[in-house]
Amino acid sequence: MNHHPDLTELAFLVGTWKGTGHGEYPTIDEFDYHEDVTITPVPEKPFLAYSQRTRELESGRPLHAETGYFRWGGAGRAELVLAQPTGIVEAHAGTIDGTHLHLRALTVAHTPTAIDVEDVERHIEVTGTTMTYRLSMAAVGHPLQVHLRATLERSESA
Amino acid sequence: MNHHPDLTELAFLVGTWKGTGHGEYPTIDEFDYHEDVTITPVPEKPFLAYSQRTRELESGRPLHAETGYFRWGGAGRAELVLAQPTGIVEAHAGTIDGTHLHLRALTVAHTPTAIDVEDVERHIEVTGTTMTYRLSMAAVGHPLQVHLRATLERSESA
Repeated sequence: MNHHPDLTELAFLVGTWKGTGHGEYPTIDEFDYHEDVTITPVPEKPFLAYSQRTRELESGRPLHAETGYFRWGGAGRAELVLAQPTGIVEAHAGTIDGTHLHLRALTVAHTPTAIDVEDVERHIEVTGTTMTYRLSMAAVGHPLQVHLRATLERSESA
Repeated sequence: MNHHPDLTELAFLVGTWKGTGHGEYPTIDEFDYHEDVTITPVPEKPFLAYSQRTRELESGRPLHAETGYFRWGGAGRAELVLAQPTGIVEAHAGTIDGTHLHLRALTVAHTPTAIDVEDVERHIEVTGTTMTYRLSMAAVGHPLQVHLRATLERSESA
């Protein structure tokens, strides 16, 4: 795995990941989704490019997407910045504990036509070739609570 | 050009664009760069995916990158959300006047290890197969001023 030396602690994230997840929130019906995640080192640069797309499990209809970058934030520290086509941006900071990343949004901001997301917390863990994540969200007046859980398998290592 | 009906006013942005630009700021030496921009419709969705990379003109060394989405914000209105590997996110709103987009950041946020960018303004104009843009920035205590100007040619239409 050829990555910038600053990325040693984040190298466990690199790969193409595919799997399924489950979504819930007080304002919507529960739903199941298929997910594709790509996390790749960028030559000579101290960050990982991140992109993600989900599709409704049964219909294959496109659901969510996001794109951004993971950064190393110093020993045991990670950062994540991303944009979502729903008109939302997130800037996160958090901790790296082995292969467990715990990120909390410092900023969640949105454009005028986007819905109001107030807070996001992301747990990402890799065990062997399996990535699991849990995303909690505070939005449209509801307190921070689990919105998404997914289990992905590494299908290719970059 | 196959795009979501909400994107009619933004369709002029779609394409693969290549060209060169010039950068300046009180805190750095002036520099020239090569730039690749891709703006593509996403099937069934009311947004355009945007990604950009620059390289130093002489050495080809990677410089900047950003990734995000353009959104339509209602008649004559546009939005842009993006993330940069430098640890910065921007959420913009602005106006569409024919093939001239004028965007101003509502939010510029950053992670703990990123430099402090306070404000960003983006003008993007397409004339025929030529895109020109001007990016102004307020950062590290300096007021809003021109940072980047570039001229790109459409090399492929999506």
